[in-house]
Amino acid sequence: MQDAQQQRIRLPELRNRITSAEHAASWIEDGMTIGMSGFTRAGDAKVVPLAIAERARAEQLKITLMTGASLGSDIDKTLTEAGAMSRRMPFQADPTLRAAINRGEVMYVDQHLSETVEQLRTRQINAIDIAIIEAVAITETGAIIPTTSVGNSASFAILADQVIVEINLTQSMELEGLHDIFIPKHRPQREPIPLMSAHDRIGTTAIMIPPEKIVAIVITQKEDSASTILPPDAETAQIAAHLVDFFKEEVRDGRLTNHLMPMQAGIGTIANAVMSGFLDSPFEHLTMYSEVLQDSTFDLFDAGKLDFASGSSITLSAEKSKAVLSDIGRYKDRLVLRPQEVSNHPEVIRRLGIIAINTALEVDIYGNVNSTHVLGTHMMNGIGGSGDFARNAYLSVFATKSTAKNGNISSIVPMVTHVDHSEHDVDIIVTEVGLADLRGLAPRERAQKIIHHCVPAPYRQMLLDYLSEAETRGGQTPHVLEKTFSWHTRYRETGSMLEETAVLKAVA
Amino acid sequence: MQDAQQQRIRLPELRNRITSAEHAASWIEDGMTIGMSGFTRAGDAKVVPLAIAERARAEQLKITLMTGASLGSDIDKTLTEAGAMSRRMPFQADPTLRAAINRGEVMYVDQHLSETVEQLRTRQINAIDIAIIEAVAITETGAIIPTTSVGNSASFAILADQVIVEINLTQSMELEGLHDIFIPKHRPQREPIPLMSAHDRIGTTAIMIPPEKIVAIVITQKEDSASTILPPDAETAQIAAHLVDFFKEEVRDGRLTNHLMPMQAGIGTIANAVMSGFLDSPFEHLTMYSEVLQDSTFDLFDAGKLDFASGSSITLSAEKSKAVLSDIGRYKDRLVLRPQEVSNHPEVIRRLGIIAINTALEVDIYGNVNSTHVLGTHMMNGIGGSGDFARNAYLSVFATKSTAKNGNISSIVPMVTHVDHSEHDVDIIVTEVGLADLRGLAPRERAQKIIHHCVPAPYRQMLLDYLSEAETRGGQTPHVLEKTFSWHTRYRETGSMLEETAVLKAVA
Ligand SMILES: CC(C)(COP(=O)(O)OP(=O)(O)OC[C@H]1O[C@@H](n2cnc3c(N)ncnc32)[C@H](O)[C@@H]1OP(=O)(O)O)[C@@H](O)C(=O)NCCC(=O)NCCS
Ligand SMILES: CC(C)(COP(=O)(O)OP(=O)(O)OC[C@H]1O[C@@H](n2cnc3c(N)ncnc32)[C@H](O)[C@@H]1OP(=O)(O)O)[C@@H](O)C(=O)NCCC(=O)NCCS
Repeated sequence: MQDAQQQRIRLPELRNRITSAEHAASWIEDGMTIGMSGFTRAGDAKVVPLAIAERARAEQLKITLMTGASLGSDIDKTLTEAGAMSRRMPFQADPTLRAAINRGEVMYVDQHLSETVEQLRTRQINAIDIAIIEAVAITETGAIIPTTSVGNSASFAILADQVIVEINLTQSMELEGLHDIFIPKHRPQREPIPLMSAHDRIGTTAIMIPPEKIVAIVITQKEDSASTILPPDAETAQIAAHLVDFFKEEVRDGRLTNHLMPMQAGIGTIANAVMSGFLDSPFEHLTMYSEVLQDSTFDLFDAGKLDFASGSSITLSAEKSKAVLSDIGRYKDRLVLRPQEVSNHPEVIRRLGIIAINTALEVDIYGNVNSTHVLGTHMMNGIGGSGDFARNAYLSVFATKSTAKNGNISSIVPMVTHVDHSEHDVDIIVTEVGLADLRGLAPRERAQKIIHHCVPAPYRQMLLDYLSEAETRGGQTPHVLEKTFSWHTRYRETGSMLEETAVLKAVA
Repeated sequence: MQDAQQQRIRLPELRNRITSAEHAASWIEDGMTIGMSGFTRAGDAKVVPLAIAERARAEQLKITLMTGASLGSDIDKTLTEAGAMSRRMPFQADPTLRAAINRGEVMYVDQHLSETVEQLRTRQINAIDIAIIEAVAITETGAIIPTTSVGNSASFAILADQVIVEINLTQSMELEGLHDIFIPKHRPQREPIPLMSAHDRIGTTAIMIPPEKIVAIVITQKEDSASTILPPDAETAQIAAHLVDFFKEEVRDGRLTNHLMPMQAGIGTIANAVMSGFLDSPFEHLTMYSEVLQDSTFDLFDAGKLDFASGSSITLSAEKSKAVLSDIGRYKDRLVLRPQEVSNHPEVIRRLGIIAINTALEVDIYGNVNSTHVLGTHMMNGIGGSGDFARNAYLSVFATKSTAKNGNISSIVPMVTHVDHSEHDVDIIVTEVGLADLRGLAPRERAQKIIHHCVPAPYRQMLLDYLSEAETRGGQTPHVLEKTFSWHTRYRETGSMLEETAVLKAVA
């Protein structure tokens, strides 16, 4: 333990800041804004947040919580149950918190992941009072070496008055050197981000702050929570196959080489499965310029398909985590973790020409995408980085299974009940049924492509019927306004989007 | 005329390419994709397009037409009436073309204005066969000096196999030197755009192409069409006053200096009126980094309020045009016109930290914006550059009058019937009633702000009633799906969004 301390807290004067989680939590006051490390269950501070929840059970203690993205270790759940969470941004993915948000109890500000720190830096949203950051170690100069994610940690630590560090002994010292911390200057001194390819390093390997800002250090030994994604299934394999076929045609037509372009893949089961599909593809020397690196990234490394991956976090299943994190040295020269402001920066995404692959909850016949709101009202997770990537990508793909809930929900609907990505930001829609290439098409043409390529019976005919009726009303984007959401209200009332006649036909 | 020729076509060998508009139009073949200069009625090719229309009246001749943005000189109208227009992108604002689009006769691909040439360069949309570009002159090396707009002209000329130039003698030779033509390299050689402030010059003053690509030169003497915007009225003056008050508070709170940040203003009457509002404000040394420079830009120059303006076109009323264009030398050191790829580039917009002011047709209680589709279906103009700016701005403002059509339409509705800008891209909503500052707020909070600050009676109470009912259903973004568009269907049926009881109350 003494050894570990010397290795992990290299600036001796900081060693006397070591304290318990409970004591560290006492720095937090009611009404404060807290910035925590953590991005899709990776690299979150794990014990101080739970000590804050513990305090909130006994006293009035409500906070605004900002993070990189979603947290693991049941932190969002525990803080919510303790009544400590009054406001949350910019992303979450926890069932308990989600329910509180949807009851209107927690104010959730769902943001493009590249934008949160811009708004903090310009003081357009509440300032961070205290940052709580998980670290591998603190360097000789008091700089913080993050763990499995960078997220917003660097800016939180720089902008906060006080910083609490959780040194996590289960996180390998080998993580040192993996991170590339770059912080844009304040305007009008702001310069271009000098990143010209996925593997460029443009910053420092640790977060530089004045060491006197570190008011408490807590030593922990809790591992990152494992990813909750499911393994690929028959449908996600078909989605992946359609995409691989599409890219083969792009290569054949000379628009892409068989290295493709740097790829981004969204969070969740489907995006991970799609990336796995590249294992059995003819493409090689692939690169990723993404946000979350999931299991598939390391499968692609191991298969020799992937040359380099840039992300903001590494989120793995329990099994993969064992294999990868204990032996991270093996991957280190092919990996970099960046602040989410850089991984998701519109400037870099457009410059590099990313192939962005994200997931939709529902898509409409014109190619507008809802990735966040179930039935238009209830928050699932949040928009995350999908907008940063889809808007600025070289090619923007959205994948979804064509139906959900045993076929009772069609993921392709007349009009989406909530728009996260407008048709302008959506080039390709792919389901297990097929792929619709929408580039250069007007809305009425997009509708034909999507309905014929992506939708199974009986929803296909229902959408064709809707479209014909809509076209009699005219317009660039024809609709029958009084029927646009009738599928959703029917689902709400009957448990299925299918018309009774269609249900009967399907059964017969 | 000989003199003019020598001055305007400085590469002697090109002088024998001078021909008639009719002859130049004979280069166009049925099915071709034509790229024309022109951006919001400025700098459009004026005679060859009409000669194409003339041909199309007599023979089968249908084209895909790409431009910078909207055209003047009734070109869109005439080509549509002649049946020559089969496909149009990325923007238009012509009533005849609009009607044909809404009948489904012309396929209109409405795009973010920064993206069209990226898609051309990567061959993701049909290649340009012939470019038709209005010019002040052709240089000694055969480079084209554009007139009152740059738009997509440079990339069209570079990417097309053949170029037709219209030399417009009414356009002052003094325009030479105003333009800054910068073309990003192909990926993966793409570098940062080295533009660090609105006045930086990073390119050449003319469009460099191999002179042998210029297959025809036509001499014209038709002026740009005047802008169609209306002068500020009482309501737009109130909108401007609310915004000026807001910025005063931002300065008082130390978030902005009284130079504010570089400003973008959208097209149309309202955006122009809002900019005029800065004439009577305490702000000074303002700069614009915008797309279209309208009358207000030059009023602000004349009042000594504005130091510099960067745009992609200059579109003026008839009167202003006389004063400004005949004497453009007076403004030249304070002006630059750029390709729309640069004026609207996400990279530059985010770097500079733009205050973006655009206009909505309708806004919903959560702050989603519809700028394009009347009643969700019928195209007005197009998204234009509003998405490029709103998404990447330091601060994104949307302005609208609170009602349209004599109060029969509320511009604030329960749910917009089409989403161009999602709530994530909208910081401020302002109407003549007042201003809602939405920064850092969750949807339920945004709804309260918008309804109480921006909506007049009786729509205010109607929206409050909708919101209460929606909140009983729960959700991050509560809605009553079967009623979301009831206002629009009521308008369609009765000519008013007002409920009968509200109409009665309003009359009483
Ligand atoms: C959209 C998103 C929820 C899909 O996640 P996924 O794990 O790949 O997809 P799944 O098909 O397993 O769907 C997840 C759940 O949504 C449900 N669902 C899918 N489509 C639905 C629809 N149209 N209506 C209602 N529920 C739907 C599924 O049934 C499933 O429910 P369950 O958890 O109860 O089984 C996820 O990708 C997301 O949150 N995206 C937004 C953020 C983002 O894109 N980030 C990327 C950059 S950070
Ligand atoms: C939205 C837009 C049409 C507003 O234009 P404007 O001239 O400032 O605004 P006005 O209030 O005069 O409205 C224009 C017309 O729309 C009508 N209108 C306004 N709100 C409406 C609504 N909610 N429903 C139906 N019609 C509406 C007005 O009545 C007016 O009709 P008219 O021409 O028959 O008189 C225009 O700004 C636009 O096309 N924007 C999209 C592109 C863009 O933002 N570009 C900026 C960067 S290029």
